[in-house]
Amino acid sequence: MSAYVKNAWYMVGWEAEVPQDGFLTRTILDKPMLFYRRQDGGFVGMVDRCPHRFAPLSMGKREGDAVVCGYHGLAFDESGTCIRNPFSDLIPPGCTVETFVMHAKDTILWMWPGDPARADPGAIADFSCMAPDAPMPQSPGHLVFDANYELLTDNLMDLSHIEFVHTGTFGGGGVIFRGEHSVREEGDTLWSNWWMADTRPGWATFLPPEMKTDHWLHMRWTAPASMMLEIGLCPAGVDPTQAPMPPMRGPHIITPETQTRSHYFYGFSAMQGEDGVGRAFREEDQPMLEAVQRSMGDTDFWSRKPVILNVDAGAVRARRRLMKLRREEGSQEAIAAE
Amino acid sequence: MSAYVKNAWYMVGWEAEVPQDGFLTRTILDKPMLFYRRQDGGFVGMVDRCPHRFAPLSMGKREGDAVVCGYHGLAFDESGTCIRNPFSDLIPPGCTVETFVMHAKDTILWMWPGDPARADPGAIADFSCMAPDAPMPQSPGHLVFDANYELLTDNLMDLSHIEFVHTGTFGGGGVIFRGEHSVREEGDTLWSNWWMADTRPGWATFLPPEMKTDHWLHMRWTAPASMMLEIGLCPAGVDPTQAPMPPMRGPHIITPETQTRSHYFYGFSAMQGEDGVGRAFREEDQPMLEAVQRSMGDTDFWSRKPVILNVDAGAVRARRRLMKLRREEGSQEAIAAE
Amino acid sequence: MSAYVKNAWYMVGWEAEVPQDGFLTRTILDKPMLFYRRQDGGFVGMVDRCPHRFAPLSMGKREGDAVVCGYHGLAFDESGTCIRNPFSDLIPPGCTVETFVMHAKDTILWMWPGDPARADPGAIADFSCMAPDAPMPQSPGHLVFDANYELLTDNLMDLSHIEFVHTGTFGGGGVIFRGEHSVREEGDTLWSNWWMADTRPGWATFLPPEMKTDHWLHMRWTAPASMMLEIGLCPAGVDPTQAPMPPMRGPHIITPETQTRSHYFYGFSAMQGEDGVGRAFREEDQPMLEAVQRSMGDTDFWSRKPVILNVDAGAVRARRRLMKLRREEGSQEAIAAE
Repeated sequence: MSAYVKNAWYMVGWEAEVPQDGFLTRTILDKPMLFYRRQDGGFVGMVDRCPHRFAPLSMGKREGDAVVCGYHGLAFDESGTCIRNPFSDLIPPGCTVETFVMHAKDTILWMWPGDPARADPGAIADFSCMAPDAPMPQSPGHLVFDANYELLTDNLMDLSHIEFVHTGTFGGGGVIFRGEHSVREEGDTLWSNWWMADTRPGWATFLPPEMKTDHWLHMRWTAPASMMLEIGLCPAGVDPTQAPMPPMRGPHIITPETQTRSHYFYGFSAMQGEDGVGRAFREEDQPMLEAVQRSMGDTDFWSRKPVILNVDAGAVRARRRLMKLRREEGSQEAIAAE
Repeated sequence: MSAYVKNAWYMVGWEAEVPQDGFLTRTILDKPMLFYRRQDGGFVGMVDRCPHRFAPLSMGKREGDAVVCGYHGLAFDESGTCIRNPFSDLIPPGCTVETFVMHAKDTILWMWPGDPARADPGAIADFSCMAPDAPMPQSPGHLVFDANYELLTDNLMDLSHIEFVHTGTFGGGGVIFRGEHSVREEGDTLWSNWWMADTRPGWATFLPPEMKTDHWLHMRWTAPASMMLEIGLCPAGVDPTQAPMPPMRGPHIITPETQTRSHYFYGFSAMQGEDGVGRAFREEDQPMLEAVQRSMGDTDFWSRKPVILNVDAGAVRARRRLMKLRREEGSQEAIAAE
Repeated sequence: MSAYVKNAWYMVGWEAEVPQDGFLTRTILDKPMLFYRRQDGGFVGMVDRCPHRFAPLSMGKREGDAVVCGYHGLAFDESGTCIRNPFSDLIPPGCTVETFVMHAKDTILWMWPGDPARADPGAIADFSCMAPDAPMPQSPGHLVFDANYELLTDNLMDLSHIEFVHTGTFGGGGVIFRGEHSVREEGDTLWSNWWMADTRPGWATFLPPEMKTDHWLHMRWTAPASMMLEIGLCPAGVDPTQAPMPPMRGPHIITPETQTRSHYFYGFSAMQGEDGVGRAFREEDQPMLEAVQRSMGDTDFWSRKPVILNVDAGAVRARRRLMKLRREEGSQEAIAAE
């Protein structure tokens, strides 16, 4: 059983991180990867390793849509096929680099590490909240945590932690203590939702002081670890779907670099500023999650027999779904190998 | 067979290192540990890891005699039992943290990692030399060496090294070369003793210049690695037990942090000053012992077939006793498991 | 099968690196080694580890041709035999340190880690180009790369890389593109040769501008990884053996420190200066080879199924020879053990 689901869309970065000419390099699912723009505007995702002497191709250079290795000059096109051996007309058989299906949507660059035939861009979860023309435009944020990606999922699918971890920023006001937690499944999507009736969060200073509000925090999860947080507020007793103010939606997308290191991609509005959002992640979540990872070492989460609380329901269901997907992919590989 | 004897008292620190409010954290026998003071003056020793999501409890806070996890707010009393789940009245079964029997004596804080029923504070070796009312009061010293604890025991049970390692501080004057070495067993205690007849150590400048003296260095060992050095001086030919000046006694107590890292606890008098004692350990013993550890890597001491010298008699006997104790505990565990 | 050929001469350093009194220490083939000068001018190569408590002997001191351990004073003569136990007349059996046959020639210090009976200094490859009385005297250079020694051999036996890696220094002028590559075997020696007819390298500014030249680069290899580069230039069409200017010859000798770290020994003339040669190795080869090593991790070269190019012929042949030698030594050890 692989440590990762393969047939899923993984966010590898923000579209804007890939330079016009040159490369973005990033480790994704334990693989050193190279990303670049094709001349037609598409994106290439290629393993960053020459098949000849294993030099990182990112030490070489671009030549149109091709990459030229900086060690002995082998050139590979955007499909990873070797198209030039500078010291011979002969291109040895098997001289190829693995590439993956890529798709850019709403400023996000996605990669499909599994079977290319199954890569359907229509299955990418909706993050139109990051589109340039979204009602409330957001800027891209990125952190790297020294912690397993499922620990980051646990953290986001169980927001009860904000009362303890985020006392220095946006949490800790007792909002969650007044909430009701529920988990909902919609096909491949999970929702881990907090509903806080007659509750007014501390940041809602823009409303008339006497106004009573209902408040909600809904976290949407799709495999492998792509989450979206919806923050809602409406006059107390009003049907939330009729709220006069649309809910704020923001991405919390996690991609494994390795089993113990993860990319955390998020958005922030001009009003919030990077620090208004990222500081809570950097100064509060990150030290906690990295301490948890150190505490676990390289042991498996379930083998440690964790105590399960009621508020873990969403996180545990996300873990179980991933486990099921990995098991299914393992069985398919076993069948394919027969 | 465990790497450590479990049914033994291990020094984890000096009483004064545990703050009035808050925690002392320290790795002991490979375990991250948390120590704090109860309101009744006693001490708690608890594994520093929440059973829910494995956060270090030391990132949380004290609440009376309880500890509140800083991640999701679970509270544990001084026995390690969960007494509060902030998001439910239900406390899940098995929600406990391991705690150990602690005992403070003569400014030293001891922990018993084994069977609590066998933890007898009366079995703690005598270190009354560190009591505040000792004839010659001493201050607490602490170093951490990147070396296995038994290498530190070897070093202390074979003081012949002072002629070579401590040439820059208190050794190297040829005193040991004039000595006779003997090893004595008294029940669970070992003595590794040097007797230097008609010898006057360089530091005895306070005596009349024409006075002849006999001199001794006695190292007392109790499992696992708690040593006491007795330094004696008396007029030549006088029965040492009738020496006009009482011998100086000081602790040299070693506790494994891990298999390759050890705590070294020692004392120093106001006259000596920390530097007068600790410098020899830091600048002379530490580089040597850490070089030995690097030289051994992660290989087992006996598997390397070390050459044994006559002066190793005390060190080797201490190693054999520990091995016997570990073997016995292994057998008991095997019987208990049947 | 050992990771290294044992019955071969390995360069451990430059003769001048061994101080008149005291030690040169260096890790060679995974072993911590100690090198020093005997009073008769010869050299001693000894494992840097006391057999008593495994202290590095280099932390001790010299006493004539002997070494005295800095921990407990055991003394070892130049054959590694213990000759003094300072606390007893008894020297325990087996109290010896492993030593190796050494030979100094043409300013280079060589070590033979294999069977001493087979150590023939006459088999040392000719590096008289480094002799003090060589026609063009050279100074000694030394770098350490975090890369396997065979990757460094690959790099030197396939000089096609200079068109890509050395564009900032002496390569990249298209010289190699005009060359013909051939590999020649002479007994235990391999030659990986480039011949560039009617080609004038950029550095040949000292010749009349209208003069046409033929140019060659010949790399000579002997096991384990001792290479010599011959750089030749003669008027176009003239028999190279009759070239009016003698070819320049320089050492490129690689010695494994460990499987992933290697010594690189080279020479440079007063005209070139250290930077004129070493900079290309430090700033161009080293980053590339260390990136290749990181890219490979601890996987075996052949298990990664590298693509083989025509220009790899010399490098691959050197790898095969080493593999054959290691296999033969493995068989001999198996026979000896029967």
